[in-house]
Amino acid sequence: MVDAAISSGTADRECMFEAFARRLPPGRRYGILAGTGRLLELVRAFRFTDAEIGWLEENAVVRRPTLDWLANYAFSGSIWGYQEGEAYFPGSPLLNVQSTFAEGVLLETLILSVLNYDTSVASAAARMVSVSLGRPLAEMGSRRTGEYSAVAAARAAYIAGFSSTSNLEAGRSWGIPTMGTAAHSFMLLHDTEEDAFRAQVAAFGVGTTLLVDTYDVPTGIALAVAVAGPALGSIRIDSGDLPTVVAAARAQLDALGAVQTRITVTSDLDEHAIAALSASPVDAFGVGTSVVTGSGEPAAGMVYKLVAHKNDSGQWTSVAKTSTAKLSVGGRKTALRRLDSAGIAREEIVQLGDGPEGAAPAPHGGLERELLVPLVQGGVVDERYVGVAGTQRARQHHAAVMQELPIEAFRLGRGDAVIPTSYR
Amino acid sequence: MVDAAISSGTADRECMFEAFARRLPPGRRYGILAGTGRLLELVRAFRFTDAEIGWLEENAVVRRPTLDWLANYAFSGSIWGYQEGEAYFPGSPLLNVQSTFAEGVLLETLILSVLNYDTSVASAAARMVSVSLGRPLAEMGSRRTGEYSAVAAARAAYIAGFSSTSNLEAGRSWGIPTMGTAAHSFMLLHDTEEDAFRAQVAAFGVGTTLLVDTYDVPTGIALAVAVAGPALGSIRIDSGDLPTVVAAARAQLDALGAVQTRITVTSDLDEHAIAALSASPVDAFGVGTSVVTGSGEPAAGMVYKLVAHKNDSGQWTSVAKTSTAKLSVGGRKTALRRLDSAGIAREEIVQLGDGPEGAAPAPHGGLERELLVPLVQGGVVDERYVGVAGTQRARQHHAAVMQELPIEAFRLGRGDAVIPTSYR
Repeated sequence: MVDAAISSGTADRECMFEAFARRLPPGRRYGILAGTGRLLELVRAFRFTDAEIGWLEENAVVRRPTLDWLANYAFSGSIWGYQEGEAYFPGSPLLNVQSTFAEGVLLETLILSVLNYDTSVASAAARMVSVSLGRPLAEMGSRRTGEYSAVAAARAAYIAGFSSTSNLEAGRSWGIPTMGTAAHSFMLLHDTEEDAFRAQVAAFGVGTTLLVDTYDVPTGIALAVAVAGPALGSIRIDSGDLPTVVAAARAQLDALGAVQTRITVTSDLDEHAIAALSASPVDAFGVGTSVVTGSGEPAAGMVYKLVAHKNDSGQWTSVAKTSTAKLSVGGRKTALRRLDSAGIAREEIVQLGDGPEGAAPAPHGGLERELLVPLVQGGVVDERYVGVAGTQRARQHHAAVMQELPIEAFRLGRGDAVIPTSYR
Repeated sequence: MVDAAISSGTADRECMFEAFARRLPPGRRYGILAGTGRLLELVRAFRFTDAEIGWLEENAVVRRPTLDWLANYAFSGSIWGYQEGEAYFPGSPLLNVQSTFAEGVLLETLILSVLNYDTSVASAAARMVSVSLGRPLAEMGSRRTGEYSAVAAARAAYIAGFSSTSNLEAGRSWGIPTMGTAAHSFMLLHDTEEDAFRAQVAAFGVGTTLLVDTYDVPTGIALAVAVAGPALGSIRIDSGDLPTVVAAARAQLDALGAVQTRITVTSDLDEHAIAALSASPVDAFGVGTSVVTGSGEPAAGMVYKLVAHKNDSGQWTSVAKTSTAKLSVGGRKTALRRLDSAGIAREEIVQLGDGPEGAAPAPHGGLERELLVPLVQGGVVDERYVGVAGTQRARQHHAAVMQELPIEAFRLGRGDAVIPTSYR
């Protein structure tokens, strides 16, 4: 497309692209945007190396003028967007990219890859957090997603309220708190379960978490307390009918005097399994597959569409595909969340015809919150939204946003978006 | 685990780890292993940088002896595995890692991340290929998975029989044939559909593929043929009720004399949608979300377990977790696929108690094919399985393997594994 646009003279036409989701995944009441901080760093660093240009040339993928243009590529446009960690609804204009056609279209795959994946993880993670009743959740799913996606997943889950991750690279890159655990292989490596427990306690002290379900859970718990004493930090249970096993484990620990010993459960948990443990004496959850694969929705369904371009006289023209059910709403947009007097979100208001850089939107009565913030201006990324600080900021923003959602948002049962999206 | 094992003196114990899937995803008749070639390159390059060691030290994640050990880490063990592109069934011993405990356990997350993701894509892709009736499939899902996973997905889909990808980096890194397409944004950028078609034909000639569903499909087709002439290479349709729209498009093209013009369809295709187009005059498919997310199964469910270790007298001891339903079969294993006289697979035979480096397995009658091949020996990777050549080899192996599967394997309806796994 860039190649054809350069040759037809339309590559430099000023455009506005928008990333949005036409709908939420089936049954979901809200989505949580994530990936913005990662994306901004990737956009800033997006360049074509000599090796890449050489490959494109050798394989005649594009022609000389395009090769030259790519070799000098650096995004110089502006990006507005919802803050990372923000809730969103069908049609929420999550990201607005204003640039030449060529600069903006080149980012399409990068923008959608990052936002679709990270958002799918954050949207699932938020549901798990909302049913955890304040008990900490650790992200432990690195092995169930691509090796780079694993780092992104740890970050997205943390933004959505998870407490920690087992992915050390996510700790190093993004400042996410990390935790570790012993697997069954560590137990099986040793000649006896007691040897394994003694080795672990010798290495990490009695505050460690001992995995008690390698052979027989009651025997494992008795042995764990015998080895570490009643000050044992935690036990982990990774299998079995969890409500039953956890209740029995708590009773056994208490009877052994290990009343402060915590119970961590793992074992294919998702939001429904966590909710089913509401009344169980679980102290912490470890979640793997379901969080890193978006709990059944591994791509958030976000699309990136050209919504407007400037004509030769400098006027913005709204554009949209019109043929079928895949409708898009053309035009530049601003977005507001209308809150009631109690501060609860009641409506997502999308105003057409006014770019995010335009005049302040007209008031609609009640309390309203502007949703689009400037992220990149003239190619310069706002530092507040990137790096470790940006990740913390996103987590804090997310926590505040969740307080605004109507209580119906947190029902796991299937339903529609918890607030309507209105176009004005 | 490495830290505790170093301090307990068990880190250097010789171990065998195995990667396998306890079951296929619900309803699937077979799985397709992918990721091996990528994995071998990653294992070979797996080192800890000074920055990483420094972070582990600053954050007191592990202690000094472990830091020193990590700083010198390079995998020196051996790996046997099923060939990339191979079919597998519940319990198939897909990868055997023989090394010290510390060397082997350190690779767990890397091995599972790569194999779970790539295998989920290849397993879905193979089902799509099997119902495509020989018509080419292009992988176009980069924007629906993490930005690095996108490259892996293109490679895995190609191994499983896709013809090409829209991901240029997959072309550059792995030699996958690439293709491109114009999106609706290119159409909308231009003042009229005719301007857009003229720009594209001017850039790429009449052999290009014109996207005809931006406004109205019959009008778009008429215009496309008017602009490019009856030698137009292809049209693409990305929306609507495809069987109906495609039939009408073919009739219209034929009436316009464009009898050689091909019809490419895209639009949330999966194996079921492709099968539903069996009788439609579609010439090529473009598949996005469903292939890169494993068509509902984004992680293949592979696990990595310690199955044996050598005791102090040099004897292998089989080990397995025994507590619950998550059963594993301990011990070193060899694997054979038993074929009938017509060369059709009838049984997956897993022989216990004999490592892959052991004596040749006893014959069971009939034609048998050994499934485990040496991939890494003493830390040295077999070059035949990596890089562009390894990817081509995997694709060819996959094509041969698919000829062996019983015809029932290709039914999309739900069912069990198409051949049984027997332990002997």
